[in-house]
Amino acid sequence: MNMNFVDLIIKKRDKNSLTSEEINYFVKRASDKNFPDYQISAMLMAIYLNGLNYKETSDLTMAMANSGKILDLSQIKGIKVDKHSTGGVADTTTLVLAPLVASCGLPVVKMSGRGLGHTGGTIDKLEAISGFNTEVSEETAVELVKKQNIVIMGQSEDLAPADKRFYAMRDVTGTVESIPLIASSIMSKKIAAGCDALVLDVKCGNGSFMKDFSSAEKLAETMVEIGENINKKVIAIITDMNEPLGKHIGNSLEVIEAIEILKGNISGRLKEVSLELGSLMLILGNICETKEEARTLLEKNIKNQKGLKKFKELIVSQKGNPEIIDDYSLFPKCKFKKELTSEFSGYISDMDTYNIGKAACEAGAGRKTKTDKIDYGAGIILKFSLGDKIKKGDILAEIHSSSEERLKNAENILKSCIKISENPLKSKKTILKIIGG
Amino acid sequence: MNMNFVDLIIKKRDKNSLTSEEINYFVKRASDKNFPDYQISAMLMAIYLNGLNYKETSDLTMAMANSGKILDLSQIKGIKVDKHSTGGVADTTTLVLAPLVASCGLPVVKMSGRGLGHTGGTIDKLEAISGFNTEVSEETAVELVKKQNIVIMGQSEDLAPADKRFYAMRDVTGTVESIPLIASSIMSKKIAAGCDALVLDVKCGNGSFMKDFSSAEKLAETMVEIGENINKKVIAIITDMNEPLGKHIGNSLEVIEAIEILKGNISGRLKEVSLELGSLMLILGNICETKEEARTLLEKNIKNQKGLKKFKELIVSQKGNPEIIDDYSLFPKCKFKKELTSEFSGYISDMDTYNIGKAACEAGAGRKTKTDKIDYGAGIILKFSLGDKIKKGDILAEIHSSSEERLKNAENILKSCIKISENPLKSKKTILKIIGG
Repeated sequence: MNMNFVDLIIKKRDKNSLTSEEINYFVKRASDKNFPDYQISAMLMAIYLNGLNYKETSDLTMAMANSGKILDLSQIKGIKVDKHSTGGVADTTTLVLAPLVASCGLPVVKMSGRGLGHTGGTIDKLEAISGFNTEVSEETAVELVKKQNIVIMGQSEDLAPADKRFYAMRDVTGTVESIPLIASSIMSKKIAAGCDALVLDVKCGNGSFMKDFSSAEKLAETMVEIGENINKKVIAIITDMNEPLGKHIGNSLEVIEAIEILKGNISGRLKEVSLELGSLMLILGNICETKEEARTLLEKNIKNQKGLKKFKELIVSQKGNPEIIDDYSLFPKCKFKKELTSEFSGYISDMDTYNIGKAACEAGAGRKTKTDKIDYGAGIILKFSLGDKIKKGDILAEIHSSSEERLKNAENILKSCIKISENPLKSKKTILKIIGG
Repeated sequence: MNMNFVDLIIKKRDKNSLTSEEINYFVKRASDKNFPDYQISAMLMAIYLNGLNYKETSDLTMAMANSGKILDLSQIKGIKVDKHSTGGVADTTTLVLAPLVASCGLPVVKMSGRGLGHTGGTIDKLEAISGFNTEVSEETAVELVKKQNIVIMGQSEDLAPADKRFYAMRDVTGTVESIPLIASSIMSKKIAAGCDALVLDVKCGNGSFMKDFSSAEKLAETMVEIGENINKKVIAIITDMNEPLGKHIGNSLEVIEAIEILKGNISGRLKEVSLELGSLMLILGNICETKEEARTLLEKNIKNQKGLKKFKELIVSQKGNPEIIDDYSLFPKCKFKKELTSEFSGYISDMDTYNIGKAACEAGAGRKTKTDKIDYGAGIILKFSLGDKIKKGDILAEIHSSSEERLKNAENILKSCIKISENPLKSKKTILKIIGG
């Protein structure tokens, strides 16, 4: 191609649209390690400030997906429906819905990530199960899904390498919070992971990357539009993240909460969102026709423990210890535990979800730097929900940590995250909107 | 300073103003060679798209000036008034006005540059005079000015190094045409060159970097505002560059035209602009009180040949051969010469000044790459002005070159640059506006 990169920067700088060929050239150059970072960062800033239309965003998505290996799932029968969440606190939906929809007959090839910042990651959570192996080759993954409909594995390194470079650069050039760049980054990895259809959970609120509803909505719409442009069915739901989704924050703790839902022992926001996403997956996968039908099937497979059985199969097939399902004492445990009690009576009026996630990380549930080791038993169990009425002296939360110092730090952070007011809250919804489908 | 560069990028990205401290930090980081280019380029694009206010632009100017050595001219008595042109074709004003105002008593410490793109440079022009040395140390410069009121020298390498880095980066990141970045770049170098006051010639038209009047006006206003903010008197004039300023384009040729003006042999646009700029310099330098007075003095020093004598002194003091003044045959000469004649009768209605400059470069007057050697005798002599009435067969221009091939190339370019129409033009002005003062 006889193009000049500076001309492309100038084109975007001057608010013009880039052609497919130009977007391909941009991504191709960015895939060349010797290509200078400073031209990429100038382009990213121009994109940040002047945006990309849906066509450009779709072209960018496909160019990034095609910059590396695309998983070949053609040997697996049926529609491969993937699921992605934009990240929040105590979001354990994958561990609930993946075995559940697999037990309903949907093939689940799930690539997941590790914890990042204040959010946890499915791969870290699964590794809290002793022996569980998340490094699965493409061949093994296909074999496992053909046999038992499910695999959950770490994201391959050679997936969408151009996106990796952009992602790393955006972090240090102030170009992270761009809807088209976020949307194409997410979508490119999902395309590369080989899915036919996709259900998205776009979080919205103080514990998520999209603080306000309109940004979350725009992100969801953009990803649904990309799906339209590249002929993949995409449905997005926008869910509330003004409090942690589940009650358990931390790796072992979240696995336990997921198992409890699969056992039918508990309900609440985490179950609600898991079943909503699972229902949409079953519909996109042509397993069910309506949401009612899907919902009924999922509830049935909780009741008859088919979902739980599928989770056990998953653990066994990936070399984890399945006994943890019936004996939570087999999970890594922490030496120190502290209960946080309320100093006031009233209603829980605000939860600083971002910092609740940070408090769990401080306790040991997350990494501060890439090379930090995770304390799998560490974390927080919340004893209430936003809006709950509480009395002075009530236990608000339990903090677990292997270090007394970190326990104390976590407690200090957590204390300042929970506001109590005299007046009850207005009723609140967890699922705010469904887009696409 | 405890600042984070990404936070500064984000601040500008979000259309906020940067404090003096933040601008200083930006420039300080950019002065560190190990600091990553990609953060600088992201910031430059954010500045390009969101702008800088006058205060930020002034802060940037001073920070860049202070990033290197600032010339110390305190030993020279009187107000040091500098002059800068934003660049055009056949702009030989410096060679006319510098000796002329020096002969009126104004100390002239002139740092000049080399040819760039389609424009010539004063230093290259002076080097067309055999022996002329433009590499003058600060000490020698001060001595020369104390003795004879004038020195013209090449720009020192350690002048405003931060500007140098920005300048190089802007070229490859699509961030060249930014008024605050252009204004601060020009002004920082002038401040570093030690001036007390400054007269600016902002070119406007198809042979200059500012094609339209409003951009030229904005640039001029910005530089005058910077002057206000940093307590230096600055006056800007906006002059027409829809045709070459002089009739001679090329190094020897332009020196000859300047000498002809100093001898009082010719008048026209080049003399008009030179005397306007010179008058303003005399006023800023407190040599004259009014423009009429200044103008009269300058004309007098042409008539009595004091300006010419000063030019001769300049040449002698910088080791050039002063005999060129009376014997133009001592200039480098070209083997080949070609006359371009008109194929039509009518009025000269349009001159593509940018490409006329390019044609002269093609003939050998400029460099295509940094390391090219200049053919000092090469160039173009125009035989008419925009709006002139001509007859078919009239000589439009003379082209000089040392290479037959380049002569032919130059002729081909030049041919397509001159448009002839049946209708006379409206009258046109050379000096379009004066700002400041």
